[in-house]
Amino acid sequence: MEECLLDDFILDRRLESDSDSVMQTGLCDLRLSKDARWPWLILVPRRANMTEIFELTPLDQVLLTFETEMTAAALKKITGATKINIGALGNIVRQLHVHVIARFEGDANWPGPVWSFGKAEPYEAGKRDEFIAKLREALSS
Amino acid sequence: MEECLLDDFILDRRLESDSDSVMQTGLCDLRLSKDARWPWLILVPRRANMTEIFELTPLDQVLLTFETEMTAAALKKITGATKINIGALGNIVRQLHVHVIARFEGDANWPGPVWSFGKAEPYEAGKRDEFIAKLREALSS
Repeated sequence: MEECLLDDFILDRRLESDSDSVMQTGLCDLRLSKDARWPWLILVPRRANMTEIFELTPLDQVLLTFETEMTAAALKKITGATKINIGALGNIVRQLHVHVIARFEGDANWPGPVWSFGKAEPYEAGKRDEFIAKLREALSS
Repeated sequence: MEECLLDDFILDRRLESDSDSVMQTGLCDLRLSKDARWPWLILVPRRANMTEIFELTPLDQVLLTFETEMTAAALKKITGATKINIGALGNIVRQLHVHVIARFEGDANWPGPVWSFGKAEPYEAGKRDEFIAKLREALSS
């Protein structure tokens, strides 16, 4: 039954094109945004037809929280961020997804939010893979 | 011991001046933003010295999730919002707090985020109390 539910999930096309998969967690597809202005992760619960967190089962809500916070703590550790920003907005892409972003004093839109601000910048060659490797290590330790 | 922990909590002055208390939940002070542009709630876990969700105990993280989502579902129900936005940013006010905001197509900054946008607008007389009454009813049913 669980397998069947996971099979029904199809990643939104915009999320797919704007981010790269880092790993599959118990519930989510953990992805890295292609926008290099901020270390920016996105967790997408692999459940079909979800737009709000409260639509998930209570167990899935707990899993999502623990996976989000495990990701947030790892991101804080490897970046030394001033503050982690967590958000579930979905005004543009309705498929349920949670942003986990490392923020620094003086970054591109500090202390404002990252969403809808300016233009995405691509990662320099190698930097993205380096960051993903660090993140995977932090998440497995 | 629980009482002692709760007693150590002091609400941040800016959160206090920018919002009104709606009720105390198991973990949080549930507050309504004074900015009338959006139906905008704020949950402040009554735990001292917290800035990131992952600093809370696992049990408190679960409580925060359930209280946030109970609030989000009630807000969706009473407003008929297009989308609920949830965020824990804290770039300006570091005391841990979670925003739960009702968003509508065509609202003041749709589909962009609400934070750092324009100037807050006050509630008309009576409208705030009417909204708080509806919210309390939705949360107790």
